[in-house]
Amino acid sequence: MNVHTHTVNTLLGAIAGVGKDARRGGYTRPVHSSAETTLREWFTAEAAARSLEVSTDANGIIWAWWDLPGSAKDEASRRGALVTGSHLDSVPGGGAFDGPLGVASALAAYDELAGRVATGSLVRNRALALAVFPEEEGSRFGVACLGSRLLTGAIDPARALQLRDGEGNTFAEVAAANGLDPARMGRDDAALARIGDFIELHVEQGQGLNSPAHTDDAGRGPAVAVGGSILGHGRWRLSFFGQGNHAGTTLMADRADPMVAAAQAIVAVRRIAAAQDDARATVGRIEPVPGGTNAIASRVDMWLDVRHPDDAVTAMLVEKIHGQAQKLAAFEGCSVHLTEESFSNTVHFDSGLVRSLSNSVRRQVPDAPLLPTGAGHDAGVLAAKVPAGMLYVRNPSGISHSPQEHVEDDDAAAGVLALADALAELL
Amino acid sequence: MNVHTHTVNTLLGAIAGVGKDARRGGYTRPVHSSAETTLREWFTAEAAARSLEVSTDANGIIWAWWDLPGSAKDEASRRGALVTGSHLDSVPGGGAFDGPLGVASALAAYDELAGRVATGSLVRNRALALAVFPEEEGSRFGVACLGSRLLTGAIDPARALQLRDGEGNTFAEVAAANGLDPARMGRDDAALARIGDFIELHVEQGQGLNSPAHTDDAGRGPAVAVGGSILGHGRWRLSFFGQGNHAGTTLMADRADPMVAAAQAIVAVRRIAAAQDDARATVGRIEPVPGGTNAIASRVDMWLDVRHPDDAVTAMLVEKIHGQAQKLAAFEGCSVHLTEESFSNTVHFDSGLVRSLSNSVRRQVPDAPLLPTGAGHDAGVLAAKVPAGMLYVRNPSGISHSPQEHVEDDDAAAGVLALADALAELL
Repeated sequence: MNVHTHTVNTLLGAIAGVGKDARRGGYTRPVHSSAETTLREWFTAEAAARSLEVSTDANGIIWAWWDLPGSAKDEASRRGALVTGSHLDSVPGGGAFDGPLGVASALAAYDELAGRVATGSLVRNRALALAVFPEEEGSRFGVACLGSRLLTGAIDPARALQLRDGEGNTFAEVAAANGLDPARMGRDDAALARIGDFIELHVEQGQGLNSPAHTDDAGRGPAVAVGGSILGHGRWRLSFFGQGNHAGTTLMADRADPMVAAAQAIVAVRRIAAAQDDARATVGRIEPVPGGTNAIASRVDMWLDVRHPDDAVTAMLVEKIHGQAQKLAAFEGCSVHLTEESFSNTVHFDSGLVRSLSNSVRRQVPDAPLLPTGAGHDAGVLAAKVPAGMLYVRNPSGISHSPQEHVEDDDAAAGVLALADALAELL
Repeated sequence: MNVHTHTVNTLLGAIAGVGKDARRGGYTRPVHSSAETTLREWFTAEAAARSLEVSTDANGIIWAWWDLPGSAKDEASRRGALVTGSHLDSVPGGGAFDGPLGVASALAAYDELAGRVATGSLVRNRALALAVFPEEEGSRFGVACLGSRLLTGAIDPARALQLRDGEGNTFAEVAAANGLDPARMGRDDAALARIGDFIELHVEQGQGLNSPAHTDDAGRGPAVAVGGSILGHGRWRLSFFGQGNHAGTTLMADRADPMVAAAQAIVAVRRIAAAQDDARATVGRIEPVPGGTNAIASRVDMWLDVRHPDDAVTAMLVEKIHGQAQKLAAFEGCSVHLTEESFSNTVHFDSGLVRSLSNSVRRQVPDAPLLPTGAGHDAGVLAAKVPAGMLYVRNPSGISHSPQEHVEDDDAAAGVLALADALAELL
């Protein structure tokens, strides 16, 4: 496995200095930031060095093509290709692997497959493309998997283009400044027709591979798992409106403080989610306006992330939280407004593809389990239109969206071989 | 009063477009921002147009001198001068008057006094200076009245220089970039010796002049009040530490979420303050790290503003809040750290000056009351070293640190005449 350990390490090592966040720790690589742009250039250069034909489509997705020998490289010859890839953008203060591991593993798996073709041990029947999706995390414009949602038509491009980042720039402005044409964005049936099957390798984001059901006597789980389903999830914004005023001159009894209402709502979110089996609800982002220490806020925006395997339960949880927030706000003399920013149904990956992935992966990792996940992915969005599946690589910390996320070298190498075997089976 | 209505309106009208905040409404004019720099240039030009000698001292305070005729303009001739002024920086999304009204009224009062000298109705015995203090709000570097605290030695300059703004810049870096020498900052006894008496005019920030005790049958209060005392107040930062993780893959039972602990603490802050007569406690600013919608925070910083007439009660309230926060954090598997960012004792203004101001002001505004305030001011910091006093101009909304703060033209004009009379009495 040494060759691949070296390859994945070398690939990720080359970008280890890009987008480091001194304040939060880890990496902050929002889409179309200079950090993410540097990563895109790195991928493009790596793909070009492998003689893959690279292009960026109207939605900002990068495609690197390994066409069949003698291919016309046109729509017809690429239709129904096998595609693998992931994303390069990160959450604020995220880890090194969430996204880039899937991209680096795609490149390393290509190297492995090209070697097999050169020695005659692999004969291909279709093209392979490596893909990089933009704004998977939704950290900059608020909607996760924005690239795959645009591609599949899961989001109206008119709505996407009006999304704003924290500095007030619209997605349209930022995309245009990065060489994309906002007028051309949106559902792309020709691009979808090129995807015969999509496989995404990703670092595991929970404790699935570390759970006692899967670990050996030393407490170590298998290196790789196959994705079974993605928990339904969505993002909502709760905006509390009150009366902004001076923190020193306004008596406690005279206040309509939206921060107090929002704080009570955060406590209610936890209580409501904890009372429901399998539910997860989180407030990780909150922004008071004006946000001064000596000013009672006039408005507080807080973002709510809710997930449950049963989409009807997710909807019920959000309704319950909204109702509770309305009561709490009214009691404080405030009001509250709920906005759905995105929602994704629970996804069950294509059963044929899951079976094929399981068979291939178990050659390298005999005890590779089938795991559900609570994390959203571009593969989950694409699954609505094309057969899609996922591989997860073990994360010994079980911690994600944090600098403490981790992947061991041997596991990364096993992930590359598992991905290569899975792709070889499907090529 | 037409001349002065025109003057104050014209003065404030010239800066009405500077630092407007489209997102929050009102004005955002943090110290040493381009907006606040523009306001400083405006003041300097207005003072120069009146042939006042303008200079900025080592602590960034602007002084505009109206020396006695034939004065040597040296330390000796300016010692014990009469000084009036206020600040130009604002809270995020503040009103048009908080700060600039006192500066514009100082210029307009000078015009009135210069007219009286020209007609021989006023003979001066000492110099007058108009002053502008930086970072009164503490909105950028977290410590209110930073300029007057440095001048009087109430803050160690080594500590002040290390304060950071929201973007991570130190006060030392920002001050140096704005032409100040960090090495020269700190207590300035020569500058303090030049202040014989300090009078600050300010928009009222509460309902004092609107209270039934002072309003007429139409519900309208007097245009001007004299300041009696400033409520003791301070700022503390509570930093909650937990385990950052993925919002989708981390079960509710496996979390150590500092946002839930902080939210419970905000509710406790309100409960503890509401149970104590005359107490005010506010959380107007909160910053989760990393701050992503799909990430459980690893850390949440929240700022606490606490005020009470009895400084011992303020200390007791903060202790109680801290104790409660520790319990709440521990229950969530988190920890909490309390940092005092600033504290100001309750200030009672110089009794002789208060008497003199009351007598002068009541010539214009016969029913001008003596009012305590919950808002901090540079006059309160200076009061520890020199006789200081304040005038408040009526704010019909009673709302402050908000775009809804307001001053009517007639009241502004009455404020200028009251200030001019008070200064004339002391010149």
